[in-house]
Amino acid sequence: MYPVSLQKLIESFRMLPGVGEKTAERYALLITERDPEEVREFAQALMDVKTKLHHCRICGNLCEEEECSICRDTERNHRQIFVVQSAKDVLAMEKTGEYHGVYHVLNGLISSSRGIMPEDLNIDALVARAKDADEVILATSATLDGETTAMYLDRLLKRECPDILVTRIAHGLPSGGMLDYADEMTLIHALSDRRRMG
Amino acid sequence: MYPVSLQKLIESFRMLPGVGEKTAERYALLITERDPEEVREFAQALMDVKTKLHHCRICGNLCEEEECSICRDTERNHRQIFVVQSAKDVLAMEKTGEYHGVYHVLNGLISSSRGIMPEDLNIDALVARAKDADEVILATSATLDGETTAMYLDRLLKRECPDILVTRIAHGLPSGGMLDYADEMTLIHALSDRRRMG
Repeated sequence: MYPVSLQKLIESFRMLPGVGEKTAERYALLITERDPEEVREFAQALMDVKTKLHHCRICGNLCEEEECSICRDTERNHRQIFVVQSAKDVLAMEKTGEYHGVYHVLNGLISSSRGIMPEDLNIDALVARAKDADEVILATSATLDGETTAMYLDRLLKRECPDILVTRIAHGLPSGGMLDYADEMTLIHALSDRRRMG
Repeated sequence: MYPVSLQKLIESFRMLPGVGEKTAERYALLITERDPEEVREFAQALMDVKTKLHHCRICGNLCEEEECSICRDTERNHRQIFVVQSAKDVLAMEKTGEYHGVYHVLNGLISSSRGIMPEDLNIDALVARAKDADEVILATSATLDGETTAMYLDRLLKRECPDILVTRIAHGLPSGGMLDYADEMTLIHALSDRRRMG
């Protein structure tokens, strides 16, 4: 019903996560109203992301150079490795300003339902790096796939690098979270991982 | 904190309506994972919308030809004109399949708060068309700017084309709407525009 070029743009917007027909329409119609130069920059940014960006050859984070700025930072503790699912988790952690080690980005999680196996992920490089580390912090999400991946990595690392410390980030009540709103698994974790006060 | 090319794409996504930093990040990171060919098509679709699309010279709807498919449709009643704010309203109405006249797209609403004046809108062409019409249906939204625009057009059309019928779409309880959830203005409209049963 829309003109062909508009329809095509709507379909492109629909590839974005959580974007349905209505939202894609709103986005595409907004584009028709924007300054042509701004839209040209948008198109260029899309192309640049595919041509300029790649994974850091050390940690798997996204970067434009061979190695990402975190891996190149000699001020950071390269013997502490924080293992995450994706590049956006690195950013989330960096925003806290509280972590001074390095990262390892798996670029996915082991998932039997989606057929993602350990060999599809950036795991071999992690084992190689872990051999020179003091601690590997498993920071995959508290979901089924996140836990599966953490358990797999724990077993693998304990076998391949028995001398290092392997830890898992804490699970429990989120900051500001109320007990009566928390789900059952969160409460079970909050109870079992409780710690002595003071 | 992100590589430059990714940061630029995040900024471009932020121009979309209702897209904040978090959502723009999710969109941009998804793009990094998509097939390059798909992303190239996305970029091309953006460019095409700016180069191929323009406003129908009769009604102001978006189209790739000089005149839109509705204005070129001889089966439709060209003496009944449905006046809307934007091209997406045309689509919304066309989806009902219940309207067989033509449209006029204002491409905006009169808005004192945003400094949009009648001369910024596609109004002169409407007056010219209305002279050959039987009815002009004012279908701007039931918002402050929508009502202001409808009132302005009503006065203008009554003066310029005194022989035509000028109507306003009905306001009232939406289909499936419950009385106790409706706001005050909706209830006032629903009461004052009530009609005899049967």
